[in-house]
Amino acid sequence: MKSVNELKLILWPDDEYRLRLDRLRAGMAKAGIDAILLNDNANLYYITGRVYAGYAYIPQQGLPIFFVRRPVEMEGDGVVYIRKPEEITESIGMSAPASVGLELDVTPYSTITRLAKVFPGSEIKNASTMMRDVRSVKTPLALQMLRESGAKHTRVYKRIPGLFQEGMSDYDLQIAIEHLSRMQGCLGQFRISGDTMELYMGNILAGENADAPSPYDFAMGGAGMDPSLPVGADGTLITLGTTVMVDVNGNYNGYMTDMTRVFALGTIEPLALKAHQCSIDIHHALCDMMRPGTPAKALWEKAEEIVVNADLKPYYMGHRQHAGFIGHGVGIEINELPVIAPRSRDIIQENNVIALEPKFVIPKVGAVGIENTYIVHSDHVECITLAPEEIIYF
Amino acid sequence: MKSVNELKLILWPDDEYRLRLDRLRAGMAKAGIDAILLNDNANLYYITGRVYAGYAYIPQQGLPIFFVRRPVEMEGDGVVYIRKPEEITESIGMSAPASVGLELDVTPYSTITRLAKVFPGSEIKNASTMMRDVRSVKTPLALQMLRESGAKHTRVYKRIPGLFQEGMSDYDLQIAIEHLSRMQGCLGQFRISGDTMELYMGNILAGENADAPSPYDFAMGGAGMDPSLPVGADGTLITLGTTVMVDVNGNYNGYMTDMTRVFALGTIEPLALKAHQCSIDIHHALCDMMRPGTPAKALWEKAEEIVVNADLKPYYMGHRQHAGFIGHGVGIEINELPVIAPRSRDIIQENNVIALEPKFVIPKVGAVGIENTYIVHSDHVECITLAPEEIIYF
Repeated sequence: MKSVNELKLILWPDDEYRLRLDRLRAGMAKAGIDAILLNDNANLYYITGRVYAGYAYIPQQGLPIFFVRRPVEMEGDGVVYIRKPEEITESIGMSAPASVGLELDVTPYSTITRLAKVFPGSEIKNASTMMRDVRSVKTPLALQMLRESGAKHTRVYKRIPGLFQEGMSDYDLQIAIEHLSRMQGCLGQFRISGDTMELYMGNILAGENADAPSPYDFAMGGAGMDPSLPVGADGTLITLGTTVMVDVNGNYNGYMTDMTRVFALGTIEPLALKAHQCSIDIHHALCDMMRPGTPAKALWEKAEEIVVNADLKPYYMGHRQHAGFIGHGVGIEINELPVIAPRSRDIIQENNVIALEPKFVIPKVGAVGIENTYIVHSDHVECITLAPEEIIYF
Repeated sequence: MKSVNELKLILWPDDEYRLRLDRLRAGMAKAGIDAILLNDNANLYYITGRVYAGYAYIPQQGLPIFFVRRPVEMEGDGVVYIRKPEEITESIGMSAPASVGLELDVTPYSTITRLAKVFPGSEIKNASTMMRDVRSVKTPLALQMLRESGAKHTRVYKRIPGLFQEGMSDYDLQIAIEHLSRMQGCLGQFRISGDTMELYMGNILAGENADAPSPYDFAMGGAGMDPSLPVGADGTLITLGTTVMVDVNGNYNGYMTDMTRVFALGTIEPLALKAHQCSIDIHHALCDMMRPGTPAKALWEKAEEIVVNADLKPYYMGHRQHAGFIGHGVGIEINELPVIAPRSRDIIQENNVIALEPKFVIPKVGAVGIENTYIVHSDHVECITLAPEEIIYF
């Protein structure tokens, strides 16, 4: 990656930028959108390789225009400094598009109504789904960045046993893992689409706290340390016979991996061991099926079948509260497409990057199961989160 | 605060809840809104004392209804579990309000159009400004929580000199401060209204990096470690004759304080020392003026006058890029009302909690100046961030 001090607005290498532009325009053509105006940080980063305050205007025909409010001093073809969005109209001038795609699923209502007025003659369409679709198929550079995040993420996980000390709570362990992650270059920011889900750095769940229901739409909950952020570690002591599930941030370069591993102290009861093995079995079965053309729903169903056959349904994806999905795309954000869920209409595509997380909560023991991030190739899947998968004993 | 495992939905003490409800209804009456439907995490937390997935429906007359998707098992008057917002219509039934306030400034366009259909006969109004106004005047419990955050925040800042080691970069120091903050109970989450500003835990700026422009609307920038999160520490070594500005997260209980202090290595040039003293002088002058009834604009103008008289204008609020405000309300989010800016129409009110941050960037030295959080009382202001204000030498 180029330096963040680089003044050129487009930070991707030329080939990469052109590839992203082509894919975006193919997505626009498919969705019947003549031009898009991107404002969301994740989408601006996708197209330019940096986050800035402003907009990227991409017409199907003609040159993109990058409307920038901040930072100052950026340079490049199509860079236009503005103070307010109304100035966009003037720059676009006579070539106003018949339809404009805006990010209706993530941009606030007031912002959208203001932006819509910038295009008085144009039909406003929703570009959110199209952008999610385009971003779900990763470019070669994105795959390389994801492999790099995965390698660093794995290095951190391998060193977690060395952080444990007797008498630690889940929160103590979380702080130690955060510190180690940051020392390894983790950016910390946990980017989630939409503004209703919040998480600081990751989720560490010890013992009974794994069963505490959370408001957020993550696969596992936890009560959290405070009702203003009710998720994850809650200060539960790590005691004999219980597990600690670690699911922390793998964002090392703007593209993030997702990985979960389980650690334990003392002897864990057989039901928990069986459920952990069942999670690994599900990974193996789903990796055999996860090929271009497979319906995401079929993956969910296969996992369900394995769980039911193993008599583990009451503990699957939670116990007091159950999650509705067992996997999701990852990339710039943690909740990308495809979604592996019972009603998903997504179809697996080559170069999707998918985190699978079939997990279980065993009362009085804690959470078990693993999560890996996989790249989907035409004839196999590539795991990019390679820490040991068995339960690691402290 | 009550435990996060508490099943009662309303976590505020009864008196506090009633006070918040009364203030909200007064705000609604003033804005001509008959009922509001809150969805934003910050607003849900404001009224209930917890974040949950769902909505709070508050009519001017009649009982509030809390529509909950997650977590399961919550109890209390008016708690109604729903799977989708369309079920709200049924619960409200015949008593549909003439006008409904929704959070148009923060909720995505698609969500608002869906929610608007839940109230087919009602006029939709924007409740965002009203909510910001209501939240800007803190309740006694909120002030107590802010004092508590301020005390813990101060304890961390006093220990920063002990973290420094020769050869550290700004990023190394940041990691050490994050770790210390978390050990002291900092929740980490840096809650910002809107989804365009991102920051992980705080901003540490050493030397020249203080002058790197950032896209985000914070008072100071910094290039950051990666173009996907271009703000703050960028790995600059802390060297002789330069400053380190520390502006990190003060969220210890859901209500956050904001504080900045400056540290330095070796001898700092007189211009930087003068600018730092000028910042302290501005604080003193503004504290004398910051009373109920003062226009926020007048505070900005007073500071401007002091800066111009000291011949420090080129360095004020940045050097290559300048920030447009010198103070802001703080509370559940870091960017609350009032805003201390040249065109602000806000009027200071009793029990506003305001962070003032007149700062300077001195080329080749770094950033100087302090930030404190103040409670506005009728006849004085109370500083709740009490770390030493002079430049601290490592």
